[in-house]
Order: sequence, then structure tokens, then C-alpha cells
Amino acid sequence: MKPLRRDAPLSEVLERAQAADPRAVARLVSLVEDDSPHLPEIAAALAPHTGRAQILGLTGSPGVGKSTSTSMLVKAFREQGKRVGVLAVDPSSPFSGGALLGDRVRMQDHATDSGVFIRSMASRGHLGGLSWATPQAVRVLDAAGCDLVLVETVGVGQAEVDVASLADTTVVLLAPGMGDGIQAAKAGILEIADIFVVNKADRDGADQVVRDLNGMLRLGGRHSEAGAWRPEIVSTVASTGKGIPDVLEAIEKHRTWMAGGELARRRQRRAAAEIEAIAVKTLRARMGDLHGSKALDTLAAEVVAGEQDPYAAADKLIAGIGASSP
Amino acid sequence: MKPLRRDAPLSEVLERAQAADPRAVARLVSLVEDDSPHLPEIAAALAPHTGRAQILGLTGSPGVGKSTSTSMLVKAFREQGKRVGVLAVDPSSPFSGGALLGDRVRMQDHATDSGVFIRSMASRGHLGGLSWATPQAVRVLDAAGCDLVLVETVGVGQAEVDVASLADTTVVLLAPGMGDGIQAAKAGILEIADIFVVNKADRDGADQVVRDLNGMLRLGGRHSEAGAWRPEIVSTVASTGKGIPDVLEAIEKHRTWMAGGELARRRQRRAAAEIEAIAVKTLRARMGDLHGSKALDTLAAEVVAGEQDPYAAADKLIAGIGASSP
Repeated sequence: MKPLRRDAPLSEVLERAQAADPRAVARLVSLVEDDSPHLPEIAAALAPHTGRAQILGLTGSPGVGKSTSTSMLVKAFREQGKRVGVLAVDPSSPFSGGALLGDRVRMQDHATDSGVFIRSMASRGHLGGLSWATPQAVRVLDAAGCDLVLVETVGVGQAEVDVASLADTTVVLLAPGMGDGIQAAKAGILEIADIFVVNKADRDGADQVVRDLNGMLRLGGRHSEAGAWRPEIVSTVASTGKGIPDVLEAIEKHRTWMAGGELARRRQRRAAAEIEAIAVKTLRARMGDLHGSKALDTLAAEVVAGEQDPYAAADKLIAGIGASSP
Repeated sequence: MKPLRRDAPLSEVLERAQAADPRAVARLVSLVEDDSPHLPEIAAALAPHTGRAQILGLTGSPGVGKSTSTSMLVKAFREQGKRVGVLAVDPSSPFSGGALLGDRVRMQDHATDSGVFIRSMASRGHLGGLSWATPQAVRVLDAAGCDLVLVETVGVGQAEVDVASLADTTVVLLAPGMGDGIQAAKAGILEIADIFVVNKADRDGADQVVRDLNGMLRLGGRHSEAGAWRPEIVSTVASTGKGIPDVLEAIEKHRTWMAGGELARRRQRRAAAEIEAIAVKTLRARMGDLHGSKALDTLAAEVVAGEQDPYAAADKLIAGIGASSP
């Protein structure tokens, strides 16, 4: 295949992406990141080719060994002959618009493997982090024929929740001595984890982390209901590869359980959230257009002066959107 | 004044809140947190009484001494005879809906002072953290006659940005030995800080943090423009009160500078963002109503099946909103 030209038409980029040309895939992901006006056209072209990939979320605090674990998982999936896409999302950088590459260097093991596509994405500011760009990037990798899309994100608050809402299976990484007592105590972690991986299991305190997790799981929550999935707990030493086959086994076990109906439910919920996020974004853009037309400025000045309250102003703004819609 | 009855009508709660009855203020903040259907009515009643409070944002990583610093600042403002409201926002708990009180116990110094209102707020999940509830809670405290509203939040990603967009003056706390080299290197901190406070200044490494900050400020950004505010850097030992008067002086200096036009611009921007957030929330709620009517479910199922792409589905959803609006 000839290299993709910089000025190649979108139709060619789409066609090549579906044939897994990595440069075409990269270009589509960039268009998603840059919120290209062509996104509707791209989404329409990709839609018939999506829904095949298994989507794995991987999250954890800085320092638990996410990149190493991701790299080892990619290696293991490659050994099974699977094509793998990795989206590394860094929500810590709301301003730069560019993800910090940092320890991604480890991922260079896979840089020359045409069966692996790796991409760092910055999560953008106010539109809610992962909420709209990442699902669209996942669609690109799915349509490009990845059997598996791994979304890796730093576990901080909202990003954890977002990655879980995006994934078929969410893996939460912990490590001893990382203040994980506090980490794990957060109710959130129990809500999102399908699989817990206690990495750096050769270090002191790893057993205690496993015990704490088991204790939390015994306390119940959603996992105590009949037929519910009880999160697996797996110990690893990612740097040596120890325990990685157990992680794969847990993922496979969860996939089998999901096939009993939960996968369809999750994907339905995910699609609904995705549609809603795009709708909100579109409506915001329309409000932005109104902003340009000074309606919002005038309303804001009245709110500052105390002549109007923000709820009444919002009602007027929404009425304006209705009027300006095509 | 007689104690506020549990079943007191909203009109009485509003009247008492404006007379600074702490129970009435607390009830209004709860109504805001719970997204009460009465919010438009509350906002309308408060609007004429807002715009007087000075709004201070205070943010920093866990462990830099935020609570102690907040407590000392409250004490200093009280000595100036100012009425102070504190909103402590914890964005680390997306699920619980209840803020972790933890080290807020230090704030109990002020628990019996009727000139101080303290409230912990959990930032909620998917609607974007601080973005809509906190400004409404600030309005309540403003209308209740607080001269100063201090919004304290853990500095993690989006929350930092949100608190800065909310405040007249944003104070970023750092401390030596907290990995602040990495913290400070984040471009975000330069964008939001009006004042840097290097707390625990009696510890090794504090001078280095100050030097690093000065170095970053010399590198420019928005601060190098003519007439721009150059962030003040103040060293404190909050546990002993050392340096707290310098923080107050820096805040006052920034306030004077802001009065030259920037305050009006910030408040205008803030009101616009607030209106927009409420408008988006309203539109989301309308989409939720549609969800109930199965329109979104049907669209989502079509997206899952690859029969429709999410952009086309979002367009249809928006058309539905127009039709369902009053």
C-alpha cells in the first residue's frame, strides 16, 4: 500500500483506516481529537463496521504500574494473534491539549508491530474529559479491525468513572504502599471494577491489599445480588510478567459472564450516553453561536447586575436555541 | 429569632437566609445540592441580593495544608470583622453524594462563631463537578450577607479549573516535598493562580519551591503581558499562623488590581458560564424525559447495531427536544 498522502480525501482515509492502515487510523483519531467538522461523516462511514471490538478499561493511581501492565497485556493478546488498539488518556492536563508521553516509552516494545495501534490522547477541559472524544476514538479503532481496544487512564475521580462507562470490562490496578488503603476505601472503586489487579505483588503489603479488597467485597454493594459479577482479584508483578496470564483468564471469565446479557445492556447504556454527550455538545455549540450574537453576553450582564437570575437567563437562552436551530 | 421549623415555607426560608439565619442558609445550600425543583424560585429571590461578596478560591494537592490554611484565613478575616462563608468541595467522591469530612475537624474552631458559615459539598458525578451546584451555593452565601466566600477544593485536574472560574481571586497552595515539582510543572497551575502560597515554609525544600515558581513566572505566559497581574508568592507556616497576614495583603493587592476592570470581566464571564451550565442541565433533563419516552433507547439500540451513527442519532434527539419544549 502506498503511504497516505497529507492531502488524501476523507473517503480515502476512511477506506484505508478500515483496511487498518495505521497512518489513516492515526489521522482519524486526530480528527476526533481536534473535533473536526467532518466527525458526523466519519461516524456515519464507520458505524456499519463497529461493535466487534472488546473494550477494556484500565485505571489506577499514578505509580501502580499501569504502563507496564498495559504493555504486558498487549504482548499477551498479541501472542493470541489478536489485533490491539491502545488509547492512553491523560486527564491531568486540562490546558495543554497534548498528552504527556512520559512513561509511554515502555510501550515502544510494540512500536514496530503492525498489529498494535497506540495513541496518547489528552482529555480536554470543560466538555467533560473522556466523555465525548474517547468513545469516538474507540469507534475508529473498532472499525479499523482491532479485536481489542484498551483504554488506559490515570485513576482520578471522574476519569475512572468515565473509563468504566466506556469499557466492557474495567480493570482497576492497585499496588502496595501507594496509599491504596485510602484509594480502595473510595466507594467508587468498588462500583467500577470488574477485575482488581494487585500489581507489585512481590512487595511488602501486597497480601494486605488483597485482604482489604476481599473484605470490601464481602461488605456487599452491587456484587452481593444474585447472579451478580463478583470482581476477580489477581496478583501480578507486571515488570516480570508474573500473573499476566491470570489477568487474561479473569478478563475472559468476565467476558463469558457478560455474554449472558450484561454486555448488551452495557453497550446500550454506552450508546445512549454517547448520543447524549454529542447532543449536549451540539447544543453547547449553538449556545456558543448565540454567544457570538451577544445574547448570552447581555443575559450575563443582567445576572451580574442582579437584575436577572441565572435560571431565568438560561430559559431565555434555550428559547434562543430553538429559534436558531435549522 | 425562633428556630426554623422543618416544614417552614420556602418564602420564610428565603427571608431568614437573607437575615443570615444559619439554619436557613444551610437549608438553601441543601436544596441546591439536591437539585431541588425550587432552584429557579430560589435564584430569582436571591438575585437582587447578590454580587456583594468577594469570592476566594483555594486549591492545592492533598497534604499541602489546605484545611489549616483555610481555618487561619477565616480567623484573620473574622478579626477584620468580616462575615465569612466556606464551601469545602470534595471532588474525589463521585458516587457517595456526601463529602468526606476528614480533616474538616480543624474548622471546628469556628463552629460556634455566628459570623462564619461552613459547609462541605460533594461534587456530583457526571454533570461536571463544581460546574453548576457550587456557583448556586456561592449565591446563597452571597445573598446571606457573607462579605467573603471561600471555596476550598482539592487540586485535581478539572476541579482546579472550575474553582478558578468561580473565584475573584484564586490561591494555589503548595508545600515542599509533596511532589510539587511535578505539580507546579503542570501548565494549569500558572493559568489559574493569582496567588501562590508555599505552605510548610519551615521545611527543607520550601526555598526551592519558591525559586521554581519564580522561574516559571519568568517564563511568561499570560503574566508577561503589559498591565497583567503577576502572581504573588507568599510563604506560610499555616499551623502557627506565620505568613497569614502576608496572604491577606496579597489578596487585598489582587483585589485592588481587579477593580481596574478585570473583576467586571471575570464576573461577566462567570455569569455567562453559569447560565450556560444551567441551560445545558435543563436540556439534559429534557433529553432524560425523552429517554423515559424511549426515543433515546431506540436510537441507542440502532447505534449498537451499527444501523445508525451517534451523530445522526444526536441530531434526531435534538429535534425531539425542540418538539417537546413548552
